Formats: sequence, structure tokens, C-alpha cells
Amino acid sequence: MSERAPADGGAAATAGQATSAAAADPRLVRVALSPPYDVVVGARLLHEVASRVPQSAVAVVSDEAVWALYGRGLAERLRTAGKRVVEVTVAPGEGSKDLATYGAVVRALAAGGLGRDAAVLALGGGVVGDLAGFAAATYLRGVALYQLPTTLLAMVDAAIGGKTAVDLPEGKNLVGAFWQPRAVLADVATLYTLPPRELRQGVAETVKTGLIGDPGLVDEAERLLVTAATGEGSEAAGLGGPGGAVPPGALVDVVARAAAVKARVVTEDPHEAGVRAHLNLGHTLAHALEAASGLALSHGDAVLYGLVYAAALGRARGLVDVVERLARLVHRLRPDPLPDLPFEALVPYMARDKKVLAGRLRFVLLEAPGRPVVVADVTEAEMRTAWRALEELMR
Amino acid sequence: MSERAPADGGAAATAGQATSAAAADPRLVRVALSPPYDVVVGARLLHEVASRVPQSAVAVVSDEAVWALYGRGLAERLRTAGKRVVEVTVAPGEGSKDLATYGAVVRALAAGGLGRDAAVLALGGGVVGDLAGFAAATYLRGVALYQLPTTLLAMVDAAIGGKTAVDLPEGKNLVGAFWQPRAVLADVATLYTLPPRELRQGVAETVKTGLIGDPGLVDEAERLLVTAATGEGSEAAGLGGPGGAVPPGALVDVVARAAAVKARVVTEDPHEAGVRAHLNLGHTLAHALEAASGLALSHGDAVLYGLVYAAALGRARGLVDVVERLARLVHRLRPDPLPDLPFEALVPYMARDKKVLAGRLRFVLLEAPGRPVVVADVTEAEMRTAWRALEELMR
Repeated sequence: MSERAPADGGAAATAGQATSAAAADPRLVRVALSPPYDVVVGARLLHEVASRVPQSAVAVVSDEAVWALYGRGLAERLRTAGKRVVEVTVAPGEGSKDLATYGAVVRALAAGGLGRDAAVLALGGGVVGDLAGFAAATYLRGVALYQLPTTLLAMVDAAIGGKTAVDLPEGKNLVGAFWQPRAVLADVATLYTLPPRELRQGVAETVKTGLIGDPGLVDEAERLLVTAATGEGSEAAGLGGPGGAVPPGALVDVVARAAAVKARVVTEDPHEAGVRAHLNLGHTLAHALEAASGLALSHGDAVLYGLVYAAALGRARGLVDVVERLARLVHRLRPDPLPDLPFEALVPYMARDKKVLAGRLRFVLLEAPGRPVVVADVTEAEMRTAWRALEELMR
Repeated sequence: MSERAPADGGAAATAGQATSAAAADPRLVRVALSPPYDVVVGARLLHEVASRVPQSAVAVVSDEAVWALYGRGLAERLRTAGKRVVEVTVAPGEGSKDLATYGAVVRALAAGGLGRDAAVLALGGGVVGDLAGFAAATYLRGVALYQLPTTLLAMVDAAIGGKTAVDLPEGKNLVGAFWQPRAVLADVATLYTLPPRELRQGVAETVKTGLIGDPGLVDEAERLLVTAATGEGSEAAGLGGPGGAVPPGALVDVVARAAAVKARVVTEDPHEAGVRAHLNLGHTLAHALEAASGLALSHGDAVLYGLVYAAALGRARGLVDVVERLARLVHRLRPDPLPDLPFEALVPYMARDKKVLAGRLRFVLLEAPGRPVVVADVTEAEMRTAWRALEELMR
């Protein structure tokens, strides 16, 4: 990214990208909770943080990799704007989503002397958002939080909706809080440094989001992002690669559309008591694949397989048939291979997914693209048949 | 306590206490938040927990001392009523209010396989209530919480209002959450095993509570509880001692009156943005005394001195004069001696109490008994004069 961007701090196109400034103007998606907040999607938003965060003392929480790319510069600009900045960095990766790291973060906030009027800025992917979000939810019983997602996955999913958490040795996301941010500032310029594999994680959740609330988004994500996300040769990979250059305005559009779906679902069900379950489309099998493979399969790849699996379950029930369509898309995205597991190895993990009722499992399926439905009576026989279908399609 | 109490589980007088069953009927104090909940004050309430907690899977969190006295029996009765019970005990004392113990508690909830429909029962004093409350607030992003306070301090103050927290090495109560209980079940029968020193801690907060919202409660607390709380000789000390026997019905009355004041304040200001500051009457000096003495002085004793100090500040300003009245009461309660500290040693801790504004300190003072007021312009000269007055009165 160029440092010769306009000094007005406005929404300018990233240098070298063929797009008009207008196309990259920030888009606002309102999350109509009480109090409401905005998901702001734009390019170069990280240059506008000082004017969008009124608090005069802030902590920037990030991982070391994101810090080097974007954190240092952000902290400098915040200081230039007269703010007091406490810097908190953690090691990159899911391993930092634990109680020990959480303790280090809240101690850093205390050692920095931050008071109740301070704000925590979570700069990074889903791990940083969940970890810093939980710290913000609990430090002094709650301080202002701003989510500054730097991955596609975090922009379309994790940063919106107020779910924060860390893992325990007993399982993922077992402690946390619902703590809504004051704003989500999604700067799509950060996506240009995202490795293809990470981009693919976000494409998976974007596709899922489209399927539950905006079918056209699936086509758009496929058209724009597949090449960049396939990781085929380093030259052609990534959003800025010569083979896959995507203008920021298009990214703003995709992220804002996904954010709009997520915002709608979260607004209807802030504490995950009802329709928020729809966000779990594809996730029952995905969680089982992750767990049964010892987390060797990434979450995004597992979700891709889970979406095809849910489609196969639905088709067998006479619901809409999107199996071939999704299988084609998943093939194009080149996820890590479907783990070679017997169906029996997956059942206990699916059953543990807290959706069991009298021996039958709850699944989110599609009545039609954009029309999810929760079914509570899926039998083991149906599940086995769908697994065979998935294996045939994906092997 | 007798085990030959009526089998109906109702509010019966503790054996050996000269009171009618009617006098010990549970009293309900409504905390009118959304959703509302009740503070139930009675004798033998720990025998009614199973019928007042609808959840079929519960964790009883307690410290080892309280567990031996009341936890084991409670767990047995809950199991007899068909509930699944996970037992979690921690070491007694403020040292357990740390992140390591918090981690152990939430891991125990996870290892016990408790789901979102489970309830956490916090059985103990303020430490257990704060710790188990924070665990309930965050386990699976929040499960039902019941406060079962077993100390006077917890019954009149800590268990009501939803403040939960643990300490960090950097300071007390630095991480936590506002998490309202589904109910507070205060069984005054547990107070009969409370050591005089612990009882005194509760008398201090009861007096404070009376001063801010129910002046008659100060007289009642003095009349009923001073003898039991002075610790003069083990024979005469404690609520059941021959020199200080207090009937449960009278305890129910005192606790319910204090709970009513606390409930009113909390309802007006659930997240401590305004009038909840009134609960800090006496606490600015108290926190400074605790900190400057290296926590050698207990919180309750520090509050007693803090109340006299606030009274002295107010008298010097021409507000109501309750200095002599409170000084007499504090003398009768025989707190640990006022630490021999120069005024200069206290100033930084009072200033750190987050109530500084342009070199002047905020204090809660009394316009009249029952009518607290926040003043924001107390000068260092006034503070020094009041400290000298306190030293003269208390040395």
C-alpha cells in the first residue's frame, strides 16, 4: 500500500488499484441493536480511526504479524491525533485464544492505567477480535470496544455480532461474553496482504452467509474471489496478484453485503436464542471434521465441506438441490483434502454439537438459497447417506 | 442448627431460637431490573433451594470452609431432588479471587459437561459470590446464576446488584462483569456460624446502607448486632452466643431492610453510572486505608473509619453532624486499630480512587441520614482536617 494516499483521510482507492474513489467510499451497515452501531466498510479506514473513535485513551490489541503490518502505523496516527495509546500484542494463531493470554491482555490494560472511559481496539483476525473483545467486555466490567478486522473471515463474520470468547483445554469458545462493539471498522485495504489460504477461510463464510441471506452474494464471491483464494502459485495468488487483482470497491461491496446479512440475523437474535442458529449452516459437520481430524483441517475448509453436506442432506429430503453447484465451487477453491474418516468417527462429534434431541440431530438446511430452516429430526441413516454423497463428490 | 426442623421445607425458626415461625417467614425484596429478580431473606432457605432453582443441572461453587458447613448438605438435597450437581470448591479467602482460580472454576464447569441451561449456585461470602458470579457471567457466554450468601456482608451488599469480579496483581476487582442473579437466597441461619470478626464486616456495610437509605436501620443494627460482633470472649461472641443471642426473625428484618436499600439503588443505576456511587459512602478513605496498610486492615473496619471520616468532612461543611454518633458506634464495634499513617501516605490512594477532578476529590457525604450527596470539590485542606478529627476520635 502506498503512503502517498490523499491526506484527507477519506475513502481513497488503494494505490495501484483500478477503481474510482467513489467506488471505495465507505459503506455503512447498521446493526439495529440497543444501542445501535455501524459496520463501516471501506478502503483506507485504518487512516480514519482517530476521527471515528472519540475516546482519548485507547489500547490497540493485535497479533505480532498484524502489528508489524498495520498496528504500528495505526498507533502512530492515534498518537498524532493526541490520544494516549497502550500497545498490546500477542502471538499469532489460535493458541493465543486462551485464558493465559487473556490474563496478559487485561493486565496490560491495567498496567497502562486505562480507565472506564478508555476503548479497546481489536486489530486483526478472528482470534484477536474474540480475545480483545473478551478483554474489553470484562476489563473494569466492560469498556468500549471497536472491532478493526483485517481478515475477510473476521469482516464478514467474527467481528459482527458481539460474540467474544477464549478457548479452554476442554473445548473452543467455552468462556466469553456477548459484548457489542461501538463500531466495526473494516478496512478492505488490509485484505491485499492476506495469504490465499486465509482468504479462502473468509470466502467459505461469505458463501455460507450468502446462502442463508443473499444468494447473489455467492455468485459474486465466486466471480471475484476464487482466483485470489486458490493459492495457485504465489505470483497469481492473493487479491493484488496479477492473475487475480480485485479492486477495493468490489471488496467493499462483497464485505458490506455479507455484513448486512449478518447484521440482520444478529439484530433479530442478539444472544443466540433463535434464528442466529442459521449462521451455523454447514457447521455441524464442520465442527465434527475439525475435531475428528485433530484440528488438522482449517475451519473455513471444514465449513466448505459442511455446506455441501448440508446441501446433500436437504436434497435427500426433497428440499432445494444446490449440491452440484456448491460442490463445483468448493472444488474450484481447492480446500485441503476431505479427511479420510469413517462416518462412525464423526457421529460422536456431531452429537456433541449440542443439537441432539432424542437420538435425532438438529441441522440447518436450505429450503431455497437465502431461506434457511432448522430441522430437528435428521436420522443417523440420513447423515450416513449424505456423508457418502460428500465423499463421492469431493474425493 | 437442628436437623429436626419441620419437613415441609418452610421458613421455620432455627432450633433454640426464641422466635415464632411467622417472624422468620421469608421476606421478598424485588430488584426491579429487566428481568426483575427477588432477594429472598429467610431462615433455613438452604433447605428450599431445590424448589427455587428450576434448572436440572447445577454447579455449587463454594469455599472449602463453607462447603463443609453447608455445601455438602445442599448438594445432597439437590441430588435428592433429582438434579445433577457439579461440585466446585476453592480455598477460602481473597486469594481465590484471581484469574487462576477463575480458570479452575470454569474448567470444572466444562469438565462437568454443564450446558447453557445449567445454573451456577454461589454459596459463600463475597469472594465466592464475585468469583462464581464472574464464572457464571462468562461460561458459555453466560449461564443462570443464583447467589446464596452465607455472610452478613454478602447478604446486605455483595450478593445484590450483579457486580462480579476477580482481582489482578495490579489491583482489586479489575476484571469482571455486570451479571444479575436469577435470585438471591439469603439464609440467615448461616450467620450463626459466622465468627465475630466476619460479622463486624457485615455490620459496617449495614450501617453504611442505613446511612444512605434507611436511618432507622443504623439503630437497629447497633441494637441487635454490636454484642455479637464485638468478639469479646468466645463464649459471648457470635449471634448464637449466650451474651448475644439474636433471633432469626430479627436477622431477617435487618437483612431485608438493607437489601431493600441496595435493591433501590441498583435498580436506579444497574451499571454504576450515577447514584450507585452513593454506595461508596465511606469508601474513599476506606480504600486508601486498606491499600496504605498493605491490606492489613479489613475492608469492613476500613469502611467503619471511612464513615466517620465522611461524617467529619460533612460536618465541617455545615452538613448534618453525625460524627459523634458514628464514632461511638465504631468504638463499640471494636475494629482493628486505625493505622498510624501520616495523612500524606493516604492522599495518593484517595486520588487514585478515580474521583479526582482538577485537584479536588469527589466524596459521598450526607446531607442528612438517608440523604447522600456527591460533592466534587473537596480540597486537600478539608481532607487533612477531617483526618485529624478522625485520629482524635479513634485513637
